Amino acid sequence: MPQDVDLVIVGAGPAGLMAAMWAAVYQLKTIIIDKRESRIVNGHADGLQSRTLEILHSFGFGDQIYKEASLMQEVCFWNPDSYGVIRRTDRIPDTIPGTSRFQQSVLHQGRIENYLFDFIERTSSEVSVMRPAKPLTIDVDESAIESEDAYPISVRVECLSHNQPNGTSSAQENAEVGENEIRCKYLIGCDGAHSWVGRQIGLVMEGEQTASIWGVMDVVPITDFPDIRMRCAVHSANSGSIMIIPRERGLVRLYIQLTDIRPARGERFDKSMGSPSLIFDAAKKILQPYSLSYDYLEWWTIYQIGQRVGNTYAKFDRIFLAGDAVHTHSPKAGQGMNVSMHDTYNIGWKLGAVLNKTAQRSILKTYESERRPIAQQLIEFDTKFSYMFSGRPAKDLADEAGISMEDFKATFQKGNDFTSGLSVRYGACKIVAQEHHKSASADPAIPKSVLQLGSRLPSFQVVCQCDATPIQLGDVLKSDGSWRLLVFPGDLRHEASMQRLKNLGERLDRSSPCGFPFLTENCVQPILIHASPRREIELFDLPKAFYCGSAAGNGGFDYYRIFADDESYHQGHGHAYENYGVDKERGLVVLVRPDQYTSWMGGLEDLAEAERLLSGILRR
Amino acid sequence: MPQDVDLVIVGAGPAGLMAAMWAAVYQLKTIIIDKRESRIVNGHADGLQSRTLEILHSFGFGDQIYKEASLMQEVCFWNPDSYGVIRRTDRIPDTIPGTSRFQQSVLHQGRIENYLFDFIERTSSEVSVMRPAKPLTIDVDESAIESEDAYPISVRVECLSHNQPNGTSSAQENAEVGENEIRCKYLIGCDGAHSWVGRQIGLVMEGEQTASIWGVMDVVPITDFPDIRMRCAVHSANSGSIMIIPRERGLVRLYIQLTDIRPARGERFDKSMGSPSLIFDAAKKILQPYSLSYDYLEWWTIYQIGQRVGNTYAKFDRIFLAGDAVHTHSPKAGQGMNVSMHDTYNIGWKLGAVLNKTAQRSILKTYESERRPIAQQLIEFDTKFSYMFSGRPAKDLADEAGISMEDFKATFQKGNDFTSGLSVRYGACKIVAQEHHKSASADPAIPKSVLQLGSRLPSFQVVCQCDATPIQLGDVLKSDGSWRLLVFPGDLRHEASMQRLKNLGERLDRSSPCGFPFLTENCVQPILIHASPRREIELFDLPKAFYCGSAAGNGGFDYYRIFADDESYHQGHGHAYENYGVDKERGLVVLVRPDQYTSWMGGLEDLAEAERLLSGILRR
Ligand SMILES: Cc1cc2nc3c(=O)[nH]c(=O)nc-3n(C[C@H](O)[C@H](O)[C@H](O)COP(=O)(O)OP(=O)(O)OC[C@H]3O[C@@H](n4cnc5c(N)ncnc54)[C@H](O)[C@@H]3O)c2cc1C
Ligand SMILES: Cc1cc2nc3c(=O)[nH]c(=O)nc-3n(C[C@H](O)[C@H](O)[C@H](O)COP(=O)(O)OP(=O)(O)OC[C@H]3O[C@@H](n4cnc5c(N)ncnc54)[C@H](O)[C@@H]3O)c2cc1C
Repeated sequence: MPQDVDLVIVGAGPAGLMAAMWAAVYQLKTIIIDKRESRIVNGHADGLQSRTLEILHSFGFGDQIYKEASLMQEVCFWNPDSYGVIRRTDRIPDTIPGTSRFQQSVLHQGRIENYLFDFIERTSSEVSVMRPAKPLTIDVDESAIESEDAYPISVRVECLSHNQPNGTSSAQENAEVGENEIRCKYLIGCDGAHSWVGRQIGLVMEGEQTASIWGVMDVVPITDFPDIRMRCAVHSANSGSIMIIPRERGLVRLYIQLTDIRPARGERFDKSMGSPSLIFDAAKKILQPYSLSYDYLEWWTIYQIGQRVGNTYAKFDRIFLAGDAVHTHSPKAGQGMNVSMHDTYNIGWKLGAVLNKTAQRSILKTYESERRPIAQQLIEFDTKFSYMFSGRPAKDLADEAGISMEDFKATFQKGNDFTSGLSVRYGACKIVAQEHHKSASADPAIPKSVLQLGSRLPSFQVVCQCDATPIQLGDVLKSDGSWRLLVFPGDLRHEASMQRLKNLGERLDRSSPCGFPFLTENCVQPILIHASPRREIELFDLPKAFYCGSAAGNGGFDYYRIFADDESYHQGHGHAYENYGVDKERGLVVLVRPDQYTSWMGGLEDLAEAERLLSGILRR
Repeated sequence: MPQDVDLVIVGAGPAGLMAAMWAAVYQLKTIIIDKRESRIVNGHADGLQSRTLEILHSFGFGDQIYKEASLMQEVCFWNPDSYGVIRRTDRIPDTIPGTSRFQQSVLHQGRIENYLFDFIERTSSEVSVMRPAKPLTIDVDESAIESEDAYPISVRVECLSHNQPNGTSSAQENAEVGENEIRCKYLIGCDGAHSWVGRQIGLVMEGEQTASIWGVMDVVPITDFPDIRMRCAVHSANSGSIMIIPRERGLVRLYIQLTDIRPARGERFDKSMGSPSLIFDAAKKILQPYSLSYDYLEWWTIYQIGQRVGNTYAKFDRIFLAGDAVHTHSPKAGQGMNVSMHDTYNIGWKLGAVLNKTAQRSILKTYESERRPIAQQLIEFDTKFSYMFSGRPAKDLADEAGISMEDFKATFQKGNDFTSGLSVRYGACKIVAQEHHKSASADPAIPKSVLQLGSRLPSFQVVCQCDATPIQLGDVLKSDGSWRLLVFPGDLRHEASMQRLKNLGERLDRSSPCGFPFLTENCVQPILIHASPRREIELFDLPKAFYCGSAAGNGGFDYYRIFADDESYHQGHGHAYENYGVDKERGLVVLVRPDQYTSWMGGLEDLAEAERLLSGILRR
């Protein structure tokens, strides 16, 4: 008897687990399959970008990870002086100040995956893990692809053992050791580089292997190098480069260029030739005249950089690929784990909404159109960055074969904007309005700066109307599957603004027949941010749409959807209107997707436009 | 065979659990005995004061509680207008701005106790809980009281059942259902009001029962009262008063004066006369003309206020009393749970240090001398506050029998300073230096404002020298049993300041024979906060005493004891010197106790004084 589930995820790495987080939120019946016996305990990725922390926090625990992680505040550049001795030549902030409340930080991939597992476990009992287990075949019944209730995908899975070392729940119990058949509606291949799922759907990875070889070590260093707890990019005169990444528990990760190893062009390096002492000796040479040793080594590896992007991300809009399965590149910019999670953060809510029948199947097309360009940008950036990092520093302006350390710093600095993940901007598509969609009346109100169609909504502090608590608007935009209509009516002490809000409030009244559709739970949630002094506004003078209907179902109101852009008692003023660039006279309405990207913006009178856009996305 | 343990704690309420947290930190072999079958799930206390959150955070999890709790930002006063209709007449911030990074907040006692239990479990396997179980007798071998390795106290305990519903570990397994004998070195009675332990040592509670009767209800209210998510003090014209406390999960706690019930003076009220409808009808009357109803009632009770303090806190300095066992009062100021935890936060580290043989037994005397005055202040405050809260509002200035609402507000506002727990100041004693102890040379350097001998050290942000991370100094002062020597050398770009620091550094060098004693682990830890721009100081130019000797034992340095009072990249400037009032020319050294109270202050040359003080406290 085949088991029927909504979703199969192949691979329980960062990409697979992020997909499973959404599956848990949407209560999708889901099986994750991984060939590894247990979770990873050391090594692998560790860089967490600002955007990733924002995403994790939207599930409720970004702050916990942030507390455990090692925060990176400053990058120090060390370059050879005219005697060839390395010196600190520059320092820059690691994350660009003002861009996010979370700064780039570092924590071992295994710890991060544990947080994801924990979230999945406490959120849903419908998601289970089978491990060690491997898919054997995937078959698709093409005739059933567009049929809503069919299970068009059949997967034969080999369950390799029964001892379930840390599966989340019962899938393994139901499975037989040996072959099992699972039928599902959707499948995501998150099975990393050399993806097996990819091969089944004809994936071709485009790009190539580079010639430079790197070693990685996680050690507790004993050293007189003064910046060992800073992120450092060290270029020695003739011995290659090191990237230093301070980590949790006193550990430091060293990325060390192995200049003495040079495989022939197009060939893969033989990993067995490496050893910790080979790598560490290279490190010592680069860091001279500083001393470097260790008592404790946690992990090491040697790798060769390949820079590739998959030619396709999806088949039949039933099977999707994500993460390392569709893009690989150098680890030094700390992107792999992050971009992989962002991939499935994108496809996850779309699948959830299609499967719980609130959204139309056609939105699944936007996964590839939104995510593949990001991978391409990443490879472009990585190529430039790796080249500069692997190169020998120029001795002087005339040394054209060398890398200018000024150029390197500039690339690094510009790269920080890209690598933070905050600058991602999805183009106009089914779920992001075109610029010209905006009605003439709203145009001047649309700020050009921070609020951009297709960009993630940044967070600023506002104050709860009901209890004066300061709160980050980002904390309101939880990853629970809701779209949000953020209404900025301006200063409600002005009669015109209050009247405009009241008119809008009537359209948002659920009991009214001509009202805005899609207001049911888990579709569009109205949120109000006014620009009046909190104490001069009375809660019950505001439209009911913004507090009626508590999700808790205990008869009370939901008091936490009305906010003031005002001074708090203990944490200052968030200046949200100013920071978002919203005009306090005209006001603004922003439609935000479940993943916090801006879908539409317009004036308070332009709701019909938002309704039109949503009609192509949601189901009534 | 009697079981021998370091410590027996009777009562697993807030006081008992806080004592057990210290026991876990010090790895004391400890048994907690509680007569209740399981932990509490609703009702009881809920107010968390700023100081309590600081204390919980010093164990590493105050932020988690703070995130789950309902924060109280504003108090609204509602009083009758000239027509006798209640109106909002005033608002004040609930916690005085600038006093602590944690503001008063509210969370159910059961949830708080869970956090404490969790900490105990993950910190030590030496602490166990026996429940349901009751002590039957306590015997003390008076001849062994001063003997270090004796177990002078014998406790016969009746273990009432074996099913250990949520004990932390194995004590129950070793115990027989029926009578057990336990011998211990110390015992703390945290068994609440009407303390059994208290009776065994001849405790007399001094004070009296008041006549006013109050009802308490936890409901999810359905109401058009606009301030239902604010803390409100509502005085109606003739129907009595209500205190409104918004809580987590949409709940609101109502403290309702029951003016219709008046027991005869000196008599106890018969609780069985009460019911939810009786209380709620009174609430509705007070809140008129606003509507009030509910679908969900979580808990209710009726109580009569008694205001009493115990005449003694300790016997033989072997048996101690803490919490409700030695002070009872009205719950409306939210003090009971907090002051009870503060009691054992005080005795706990002292016992820990005596038992692990780092401190002299004589410091135990300071428990009663420090804590009993606090209880007396609390009763004084509570008497005044309860009287004003229970009284009828004055109609006008001539109405002398009524309470002036201006006076009430003033009492409330002043009370907030006291009830925050932040203004506690322990007098000079064995462990707090006298003002005149300070040498003449240091006098002008001692700031008079925020830093006070016997007061808790407030927290301001500084920046880690090694990695530029902003950190609250409060996060450095963890409850791990360490004393700390905070060295503020001023701006180290001035040669004189650097020289003074280097001289001090030599005295703090562990390898030097004439160095400062007590520097071993868990005794005195040196910490450096300089006032120079971080980027102009090199870590390894600073004295070794501030980074050598990592506790982790992996060969690395401890880089996290050197800080700069400087701007951070993403979180502004903490202005620690300015806020503490430390002179950047002269500098300052502050000796801080394991509970964050200031023990001694002096100049960088005055270390001999600190050494003299510590010689009377610690053992070499
Ligand atoms: C040394 C090193 C350092 C790195 N540093 C960073 C860094 O600092 N920052 C960063 O962001 N990234 C870094 N990366 C990259 C990062 O680890 C990956 O990009 C990230 O893990 C990709 O996530 P993923 O879920 O797509 O794939 P993976 O993490 O590779 O997960 C794939 C999963 O699929 C399973 N699997 C594979 N094939 C099958 C199959 N046929 N059947 C069943 N299961 C299968 C695997 O067992 C695995 O659990 C680093 C990687 C390495 C090796
Ligand atoms: C309705 C109500 C509201 C309150 N509101 C607040 C508030 O808002 N803020 C606040 O700070 N405080 C409040 N309090 C007071 C608060 O609950 C107490 O002050 C606090 O719990 C005292 O802690 P404790 O550990 O000293 O005693 P308790 O919490 O009473 O704990 C005593 C423990 O000892 C056990 N015990 C008792 N006798 C024995 C025995 N003979 N053998 C074994 N075990 C025994 C009991 O089972 C209990 O577990 C409130 C109390 C009530 C009832």
